[in-house]
Amino acid sequence: MVTPGLPQGTYARQVPRTPATTGIRFVKGHGTGNDFIIVPDLSGTLTLSPEWVRAACSRRTGLGADGVIRVVRSGADPNLAWAGDADFVMDYRNADGSIAEMCGNGARVMMRYLLEAGLITDAPVILGTRGGPRQAWIEQKRITINMGSAVAGPESTVSSGGQQWPALGVYVPNPHAVVLVPDLREIPDLRQAPTLAPDSAFPEGVNVEFVQRHSPSRLTMRVYERGVGETMACGTGACAVAWALGSFPEGSVSVEQPGGIVQISMRGNGDLLLTGPAELVASGDLNLS
Amino acid sequence: MVTPGLPQGTYARQVPRTPATTGIRFVKGHGTGNDFIIVPDLSGTLTLSPEWVRAACSRRTGLGADGVIRVVRSGADPNLAWAGDADFVMDYRNADGSIAEMCGNGARVMMRYLLEAGLITDAPVILGTRGGPRQAWIEQKRITINMGSAVAGPESTVSSGGQQWPALGVYVPNPHAVVLVPDLREIPDLRQAPTLAPDSAFPEGVNVEFVQRHSPSRLTMRVYERGVGETMACGTGACAVAWALGSFPEGSVSVEQPGGIVQISMRGNGDLLLTGPAELVASGDLNLS
Repeated sequence: MVTPGLPQGTYARQVPRTPATTGIRFVKGHGTGNDFIIVPDLSGTLTLSPEWVRAACSRRTGLGADGVIRVVRSGADPNLAWAGDADFVMDYRNADGSIAEMCGNGARVMMRYLLEAGLITDAPVILGTRGGPRQAWIEQKRITINMGSAVAGPESTVSSGGQQWPALGVYVPNPHAVVLVPDLREIPDLRQAPTLAPDSAFPEGVNVEFVQRHSPSRLTMRVYERGVGETMACGTGACAVAWALGSFPEGSVSVEQPGGIVQISMRGNGDLLLTGPAELVASGDLNLS
Repeated sequence: MVTPGLPQGTYARQVPRTPATTGIRFVKGHGTGNDFIIVPDLSGTLTLSPEWVRAACSRRTGLGADGVIRVVRSGADPNLAWAGDADFVMDYRNADGSIAEMCGNGARVMMRYLLEAGLITDAPVILGTRGGPRQAWIEQKRITINMGSAVAGPESTVSSGGQQWPALGVYVPNPHAVVLVPDLREIPDLRQAPTLAPDSAFPEGVNVEFVQRHSPSRLTMRVYERGVGETMACGTGACAVAWALGSFPEGSVSVEQPGGIVQISMRGNGDLLLTGPAELVASGDLNLS
């Protein structure tokens, strides 16, 4: 095909109009490099299909994120009745469209959104999650989420790159398999999913954390999240490793991940408090075909 | 640290305000899975630092993209005087902040933006790029960019994963090293950058394409883009491989990449026409700290 020469075009308008804004409003943010698409839906009228979540989270053909958090005012959506009398409901999905109990880094990003949208002050609020109600508050730029208590899970064996390790099971309340290694620089390539045995240990899938202990209050960690792959940070994973391998001599355990550092502390009743930063980087309209 | 029990928070407002919109307006889109942040700047008043581009393109702490395209009306920014009397200037940067000549898939996304913003009709326009002026037009949903003619570059040797291949050099006008392989499924892991010898062949760096030829008019290709890594598609790369390894018996060569299919045709004067789809998926404000 040889296209004939075409005349130079002329402008149709001198002032640009904004491209279609009939899509779904979003805010994108991250907590220690774990990134989320916040979908404000205070009146609880949106239905996000797994296909939509996958398309939105796709790194090149969508907006790109580790997960989607639909933010709904408590009581607005009868499908979220499990949230009880929380202030706001965290309807959380993984990037693959699956539903997850909750996500600590995501909860911080949600709190930052609520604050910047003028929906909360610095007084504590209750976030309703599929893992139960979570108290959360903001002090200075640090956001704290009460993640509830950890519960021991089954022991298992994690395999990756021809190596094997024993793993401790922890529920926070989503499932984690925690592997203590002598040197975090020598773990296998996490672009491949680690495998777990026996299959019956975590039939619902599991997040795998590799952890190096520098002191009882300082851990370094990398994580492979189920349904996502390696991420720069995982809030419940940081809680799981602090609970399983740290101790709280001076009140908190520092957990260093590729995306940044969070602090984990423990209340007298066993509740774990996750404290860390969260940033919002963009807001707008999402129009997926 | 044991945080004392805190009372449940109250709402500060009943209607959310939109989070800060004082940032930089953007539109995100992709052409065959090669994704871009369009920054509309018709009056040419913005300066995008390499640091800003890197932060914006960061997949987790920013918005995420393969590159940034600042769209400026011709003549508005004296720093873009190289664009001459084009209609709109394509000020293109790679994800690492470096400046690049042009990008065919990016040019299609820019055209889609111009159309949806009401700035052009379906009449052809001239895009000013650092590679020279490029005529472009939209027919139905397919966008065609006149990429200009290809020029032969130096031969070289590409190495990756312990293998070596001879490579053909092509400028479109950015530099490409084209490697013909018998089976595209057997090339090495492109998460590692291929290396090139001699260094003097492309002192400014080079994009490397691995290509399988199914017929003279049907090629499959994967690409490692300098400054980016493997991408789902590369417009100038598709032109380079069609020019180097295809022929035009029925007018066009189909180049299939992981992100989709484009057609390359050749005018009588040797100009290569790149035709393919482009979609816009989001628009809004980008606020990078």
